[in-house]
Amino acid sequence: VRIAVLGTGNVGATLGRRWSACGHDVCFGSRDAGQPRLQPLLKQTGCRACDWPAAVEQADAVLLSVPWKSVFPVLQQIAGVVRNKVLIDCTNPLNASFTGLEMGFTTSAAEQIAERVPDARVVKAFNMVSAATMADPQYGAAPATLFYCGDDAESKAVVHGLAEGIGFSPVDCGPLSHARLLEPLAMLYIHLAFHGWGSHCAFQVVKRSGSFLPTETEDDDC
Amino acid sequence: VRIAVLGTGNVGATLGRRWSACGHDVCFGSRDAGQPRLQPLLKQTGCRACDWPAAVEQADAVLLSVPWKSVFPVLQQIAGVVRNKVLIDCTNPLNASFTGLEMGFTTSAAEQIAERVPDARVVKAFNMVSAATMADPQYGAAPATLFYCGDDAESKAVVHGLAEGIGFSPVDCGPLSHARLLEPLAMLYIHLAFHGWGSHCAFQVVKRSGSFLPTETEDDDC
Repeated sequence: VRIAVLGTGNVGATLGRRWSACGHDVCFGSRDAGQPRLQPLLKQTGCRACDWPAAVEQADAVLLSVPWKSVFPVLQQIAGVVRNKVLIDCTNPLNASFTGLEMGFTTSAAEQIAERVPDARVVKAFNMVSAATMADPQYGAAPATLFYCGDDAESKAVVHGLAEGIGFSPVDCGPLSHARLLEPLAMLYIHLAFHGWGSHCAFQVVKRSGSFLPTETEDDDC
Repeated sequence: VRIAVLGTGNVGATLGRRWSACGHDVCFGSRDAGQPRLQPLLKQTGCRACDWPAAVEQADAVLLSVPWKSVFPVLQQIAGVVRNKVLIDCTNPLNASFTGLEMGFTTSAAEQIAERVPDARVVKAFNMVSAATMADPQYGAAPATLFYCGDDAESKAVVHGLAEGIGFSPVDCGPLSHARLLEPLAMLYIHLAFHGWGSHCAFQVVKRSGSFLPTETEDDDC
């Protein structure tokens, strides 16, 4: 997959590194592709950097991994070139102190993003896992779960593959509006991380076989 | 712990059974404590049933496990007797089709409940695990996580103990307002359960030791 990674913070750099190591064609999108502090990352990964629109133009899938405050300015720059591309939204609409979300319930960052670039195929993913988990999703015998949601089956399959390829256990969580569930999940993760759990923690969905038959005589409302 | 279990559906009946089997003193609160369809549960557990206020009056901790539509009517009946008691809210403000929540982001069911009975000590818990998981929280080598939140440390410790005592791995998720995060988590669970995961699935928080040092040169906003 040709991937444009927009934002070279911990999240973008880590996923870009890992996807590149898997053989995907990764281009980092940057405000200033020539800036010296990008050089170690480019040297290490062998990837190139371009400005945001040029990176998107060459890509099949785009990872939006800039801070929340930069999301709309970046979208404005790539709006003309993101048509039909898979846009992976791993942002969270965090407030300035990282203690809460700026929106929810009736909307979500992912839906706001999809509204701004309606011809992109937005998939919410990678927003509730730390960069440490992205670097290595394995926890003991099982990988961390990668929850994702979106309205387009084909682009969800792309994201599913990209997540599985770097070791996650991807779980389809339904339509894009379920970003209203996945962004609070990220907030829960952030709270736990800041309160003793650290960045080496993650969520898993676990499943077992079994039968449990409710008694017919039982009624919630008795 | 003397526990009043209000509601004898799958959730109330299962938790009541398990707590009773652990040696806690469980009384089921029911609209009609003498109704015949309660008898199998009472016979099986050896517990008694009372009307809602009588059950609450005798208890240290109260499990509110009636359907969302019945929550406020029940609270009205117990408002006079719930003072200083631990009120465990395992409800979810589900819409009629179970496809979404009726509130969120700026409030939560737990906070609405705490507003109605301000002298109770509300703890949100057991809302994101199925009755099947309550019956047996173990998934392979590790138990399901029981997320809880509340504003009173002492009552959270009671809930922590009640969860741990029946085999859950309890995780403190902060203040009661974080029910705004735990109710969407329940909605996510319900979506997964209805879309192939079934009732024998649950969430776990996993943790490992490890160090992951972000590169100083990396900047999200490059």
